[in-house]
Formats: sequence, C-alpha cells, structure tokens
Amino acid sequence: MLSRAQIKYIHSLRLKKYRQQYCRFTAEGAKVVDELLKGHHIRIDSLFATEEWLEGNMSLERLNPKMSIKLVSEQELKQISNLDTPQAVFAIGELPSVHQLPKLSGRISLALETIQDPGNLGTIIRIADWFGIENVICSPDCADAFSPKTVQSTMGSIARIRITEVSLDEVLEKMKDISTYAATLNGNDIREFSKIKEGIILIGNEGHGLSEKIMQMATHRITIPRLGKAESLNAAVATGVICGRLML
Amino acid sequence: MLSRAQIKYIHSLRLKKYRQQYCRFTAEGAKVVDELLKGHHIRIDSLFATEEWLEGNMSLERLNPKMSIKLVSEQELKQISNLDTPQAVFAIGELPSVHQLPKLSGRISLALETIQDPGNLGTIIRIADWFGIENVICSPDCADAFSPKTVQSTMGSIARIRITEVSLDEVLEKMKDISTYAATLNGNDIREFSKIKEGIILIGNEGHGLSEKIMQMATHRITIPRLGKAESLNAAVATGVICGRLML
Repeated sequence: MLSRAQIKYIHSLRLKKYRQQYCRFTAEGAKVVDELLKGHHIRIDSLFATEEWLEGNMSLERLNPKMSIKLVSEQELKQISNLDTPQAVFAIGELPSVHQLPKLSGRISLALETIQDPGNLGTIIRIADWFGIENVICSPDCADAFSPKTVQSTMGSIARIRITEVSLDEVLEKMKDISTYAATLNGNDIREFSKIKEGIILIGNEGHGLSEKIMQMATHRITIPRLGKAESLNAAVATGVICGRLML
Repeated sequence: MLSRAQIKYIHSLRLKKYRQQYCRFTAEGAKVVDELLKGHHIRIDSLFATEEWLEGNMSLERLNPKMSIKLVSEQELKQISNLDTPQAVFAIGELPSVHQLPKLSGRISLALETIQDPGNLGTIIRIADWFGIENVICSPDCADAFSPKTVQSTMGSIARIRITEVSLDEVLEKMKDISTYAATLNGNDIREFSKIKEGIILIGNEGHGLSEKIMQMATHRITIPRLGKAESLNAAVATGVICGRLML
C-alpha cells in the first residue's frame, strides 16, 4: 500500500517548485524507465512496479541495491500516474545538475530560447539524441525538461542528453569562438551551408522565434526555404530539418 | 443566444461519425479561420464570433453573403469551443470530398499509413504546406484530418492541402509509374538520394512504421542515418527531415 504521504509527495513532483525542492523528477513506462536505468548521468532512486514488470526485470544488473523498489498494484499505479493509461512501472529519479555549462567546442549543440510546449521540448531532446547531439541548452523560460510531459515526450532520450539551463546570451558571450546558427524566417538559405562539425544551433520560441538580442549575437542566420504557403514550421520539425541538413 | 440544439449539434461534430453524417467540421481561432476563409477548396458556412472579431473582419470580401454569421459572447464561445482557452471565432465548414485520388504525376505527394496521433497528422499537413506539397493521402486508419485537434495542429494549412483518404496499396497499385520513397529504419541512407521532382513519400505509424505490404510495394527505402542513440524519430519530424533532404 502506498501511504497518503507518499502519494502526496509523488503528486507534488508534477510541479517544478517541488521537483527543485526535493531535487527529484518522475518518469513512467517500461521504455522510458528502461532507458533511464541503462543511462549513466541520471540516478533513479525509487521504482514502483507491477509484479509482472518486476519479474521480467528484477535480475537486471542495473537495478542497484540502493534503489527502493516497491511492488504495487495497477490500482496504486493509477493513483500516482500522470498518464491517462498508467504503465507498469513508475520511477523517481534525481534531478541532475543543470547549471554548469558543458564543453561545447568540437561538437554540435542545440540551444533553445523560450520553447514553451513540453511536448515540443521533449521531441527536440529526442531529435538531439537521434543526431548524436550531447548537449541541449535551455533558456530559463523554456518548459522544464524534467516535467512529466517533457520526460515522456523524449521517449527515454532524457537519459542520454545533458540538459543545461542558462541564459543564452551568457552562453553566446562565453563561446565567441564557436559558430552559431540561428533559425529564422529571413536568414540565408540552408542550402548555402555545408555540413558542420562544430557549432550551436539556436532554435526560438514556437510563436515568435528567436529574440532580437540572440539574433544579433549569432554568427549565421539560417532559413529553411519555404516552397509552399505555411507561415512557419513547428519548432521541433524545424530543428529536425536543420540537423538533417547541417549534420548529414 | 445559442440554442441547446445548436450547442448539441456543434458538440456532435467532435465525433467523426457526426462530421460524416452532417458533412461538416469545425475550426477555431483567428489564424485558422482566416486561412480557411482565404482558401478555395473548403467552404465555410457558419461563423460564431465576438463583436471585436467581427468589427475587424466584417468588411472582408471573403465573408460571403451565403455564410451564417452569428455574434456571440465569450461565454457562448466557451460553450462550443474544443480548446482550453476559447478563441474569438469558431467556424463550421463543409467537409471536402476525400475519396477521389488527385493527379500525382509530376509532383511530390505524401502518403501516410496509420498515423494515429491527431497532433502528428496536423503537423505533417503543416509540413506539406511549407514544402509546397499539395496532396496528403491518408490510409483509412489514420487519425481524421478534420478532427478538431488535427485541424488546430495544421495552423490553417488544412485550408490549402488536399486530403485524400484511400487505401495506400490501391494508390501504389494505380501509380506504378511514380517512384515511391518509404521511410524506414533500415533502408538506404537518405544522402544517397538526390533532389526529386516527382514521387510519393511514404510515412508509417508512430510505433510500428510502414506495414510489410507497403514496404514491398515501394520503389525506394530511405533511412535518415542515426548518429546517436534514440530508437526512432517522431513521425512528423522524420517527414520534415525527409522533405528537407529530397525536396531542397
């Protein structure tokens, strides 16, 4: 049985305020939890799982002895789940540190300004993972990368991508030696650029794009040519198209 | 005042069954409704709008005299809206015919098999519109292109894209002269293909990809090379990356 206090604690992690206070976040479902257990930079400290899931996974080395593992019924999972259809396993993990800027030279990184939709943010983290981008830098007003909705949208990629939450102008100020590619509707045709080995790809808000300040600091402005009439592309789709052109 | 019968009728259009029975669908918000009013192949027959919206738009030629235009309060919009935050205008449009296969030679089209998420489908229709693709063919088990969620996700692109709902194997059988490009995890590297002028790009289900039957019928199998570790890309993102490589 889950106590009322436990349920209350787990529910509180739906809010960023409490995720930060307790330094914990949640993840659900066999796929996402499995990726987190396999990953290295995020520590899972509690699992709530059905008997069936535990039978299939208990022997795994990655279930380390320090982890609290609790057998729960489907009914109990329903009480703590954030999904319409609760999954067989629910995990609580330690929030990794997000304030220290990683090494950005010699590699390609993504920097996101004010991406507000958690689903978009999760999809972008998944794109980073597909293209082998290790670092996703989020401006402080982006959706939270560790909100339940974002974590689920990453389909487990959150386990492999290093998230940094810092002001983008600080990053660009510090990283003046690295080329930056700002996605915009009126820059240079992306076909003019050849494959890059190093750089920061800058993606702006779903409705307004990148701020003027960030645009001014960028070394390149890139545009996916519009052959039809849509006013814009979804931010995650634009990220995919840009990675598909600059990284392949 | 909206009558109870009117509200009931409008709510019924949330379900495909009633959209088909009445041959109507709904759309909301200044942006989407504006695109529908500007478009040619979808006829809007009723508008429900606030005084403010009407003041700004009543003079538009595109509000034709046959349209029923009703001034409503925000409270009334709330009663009929499908959104958390109702917008200033709500439209009812005629469902266009979706069963006749358009001309596919000499152009690039998208064909979708079992895309089940309405948001993904809407985003793909928006991608088509960005890249100037006129036709999106949906297998009958795709999400409905005219569901409220899909229409909103197209951001108005539904006004310009011709949707066809037919079985994909029939399409491929009939269109044997046209090259088809099946998106898969184990095909030929997309970098081996040059820009195309004609073809059908085939995108499969979010979880399972394209069926074996469709794969067998395709003339080319294309893969976006994976540089990192994500198991897959979101279907809409993959569509964007493929269009960005084959069409630019």
